[in-house]
Amino acid sequence: MRAVVKRGQRLELDEIVEPTPDKGQVLVRTLRCGICGSDLHALHHMDKMVAERAGGTPRPLPDMVMGHEFCAEILDYGPDTPHRLKPGTRVVSVPVTNSSKGYHPVGYSPSAPGGFAERMLLDERLLLEVPNGLSDDLAALTEPFAVGAHAVARAALEPGSASLVIGCGPVGLAIIAALKIAGKGPVIAADFSPRRRAEAERMGADVIIDPAVEGPHGKWADYGVPATEAEAHIARMAGKAHARPIVFECVGVPGILQRIIEDCPPGAQIVVAGVCMEPDSFRPSMAITKQLNLEFVYGYTPDEFAATLREIAEGMVDVGRIITGTVGLGGVPQAFDDLSDPENHVKIMVDPTAG
Amino acid sequence: MRAVVKRGQRLELDEIVEPTPDKGQVLVRTLRCGICGSDLHALHHMDKMVAERAGGTPRPLPDMVMGHEFCAEILDYGPDTPHRLKPGTRVVSVPVTNSSKGYHPVGYSPSAPGGFAERMLLDERLLLEVPNGLSDDLAALTEPFAVGAHAVARAALEPGSASLVIGCGPVGLAIIAALKIAGKGPVIAADFSPRRRAEAERMGADVIIDPAVEGPHGKWADYGVPATEAEAHIARMAGKAHARPIVFECVGVPGILQRIIEDCPPGAQIVVAGVCMEPDSFRPSMAITKQLNLEFVYGYTPDEFAATLREIAEGMVDVGRIITGTVGLGGVPQAFDDLSDPENHVKIMVDPTAG
Repeated sequence: MRAVVKRGQRLELDEIVEPTPDKGQVLVRTLRCGICGSDLHALHHMDKMVAERAGGTPRPLPDMVMGHEFCAEILDYGPDTPHRLKPGTRVVSVPVTNSSKGYHPVGYSPSAPGGFAERMLLDERLLLEVPNGLSDDLAALTEPFAVGAHAVARAALEPGSASLVIGCGPVGLAIIAALKIAGKGPVIAADFSPRRRAEAERMGADVIIDPAVEGPHGKWADYGVPATEAEAHIARMAGKAHARPIVFECVGVPGILQRIIEDCPPGAQIVVAGVCMEPDSFRPSMAITKQLNLEFVYGYTPDEFAATLREIAEGMVDVGRIITGTVGLGGVPQAFDDLSDPENHVKIMVDPTAG
Repeated sequence: MRAVVKRGQRLELDEIVEPTPDKGQVLVRTLRCGICGSDLHALHHMDKMVAERAGGTPRPLPDMVMGHEFCAEILDYGPDTPHRLKPGTRVVSVPVTNSSKGYHPVGYSPSAPGGFAERMLLDERLLLEVPNGLSDDLAALTEPFAVGAHAVARAALEPGSASLVIGCGPVGLAIIAALKIAGKGPVIAADFSPRRRAEAERMGADVIIDPAVEGPHGKWADYGVPATEAEAHIARMAGKAHARPIVFECVGVPGILQRIIEDCPPGAQIVVAGVCMEPDSFRPSMAITKQLNLEFVYGYTPDEFAATLREIAEGMVDVGRIITGTVGLGGVPQAFDDLSDPENHVKIMVDPTAG
């Protein structure tokens, strides 16, 4: 079958061996698969990171097919597999598959090719049927929006907590969506990109900040949150309480955490949803005297994934508007390059049926 | 009056101007004051840190008298001050004072000399009377043990959570004491120093680890905590739940956080109670994939401080045994040096009445 193969730090369209479902697995046809920021990170950093963790020098990992934000159609079943859903059913799934060789992350394992290929093997028990009428595109957005739902579920939001979302790429937008769906608020959103600020506003953010014009923490006072330790001390002495402020870090580059630690209100929780793949440095003493909390979040639970599919199907949030382009398998390498410019794109979908 | 004055990175015994109580203040005679690890940090790092935060080059700060773990005796009152407690009453207080010049941290401000001096000015509203029969030494330990109570109160301990205390200096020992007083457990304690491991055991730790012999995380499995992501995944698939493991970081040197992030169980909370005054580096991606939580703690609330005084007075924990030496004001500079060797000392008390 045709697949976009990651070879070291290159992506190549190639023919790879047709996958065969094992017990408990289904063979599916990929209908849509989104390109995730993690895929870009993995292409550029994964080989080095794996080598560093193993204590060796970087060398190319085995070939791999990425793609974990997919909607697919059931084609066939492995041996002794229940046939719970009939062929032709459109499905989504958390990107994990199980075979006699064990569990593998779909799209990040040489043993489990992902959605940048014509076909995949999924675990039948994990499949969720796409509700009738929901498009392939919207169904495939379940995964990235579940990431937002998880980050919000893990945050220590109190009634009335104001949130600041720093970085309005797909992760930041998913968090804004999840905050609005959950009825949390107010939501402040900050991004240097005009395009992404506009997307954040349409996704429901209450206040939009351009960090080039004003610091991202400039609006806390509007919600009764003391911006500095001195102000917090005076507020305590006056018996004034405020809900814990929450900062969602959705940028994921070295230095951003220290910047937030320096500038955020005392007592804030920083939910770290941006995936920084490089070593980072910070000043623990500042985090200590401000009594900050850092919650590092990753992925989602199967329940959060299923709830997100329902919310998208019910139209609780207009997720489709983040799709800014669609390519066939041949267009994937160029799409990876295009995604480096935030003014051009938010989310590019891959349609492996388009040739 | 006689005081040990911090001049840049030196400590000098000197005569300084006699303090005069302002409205709301009391003049007290210092009976005992413990030397804190933060005092050692401040002596070596404070000038540099303040300069860096201000963006300038290091230069000596104004002279300052440290000492914030004190027991004292009321001598006199400022004008228009209620006289709530009579002269001669022994008191402890959170180390903050208020005057017409504003709030100042006692022992860390040129405007509020601390307990390494014959006399101090305290805020009458914050004074707690030392219960009859409690020694000056034990009363002065309220402050460092309140630090432990606060760290435990802020930890996300669940019923049955196992705790690992890394570093058994005064902060680690105070945390072990607070965990035992609160009936939490089991408590694993790790320290390279034989002396401190022995203190941890006497303070009530259930399991003691010498990190030179065995990794500090080697005992989690005994309490049903999966030590790795792979084990955690298998446990989840098997429907096995476990209480969130808590790691108390009480070392406060660069590198320790990354070490804990690498080695701790997935899903752990790391309560950062060790004060690292230098920049530190770590790998956010590891904290993300393990979904760790970092809770940075500092100080205590007035309620926690008062509760700790009661617990000490009721003999709920044998705090006095951490005192390993007592010096007069003239012995303070040497005591600061002596505290650098963990085999020699845990806590040195200063007795300014001893000359």
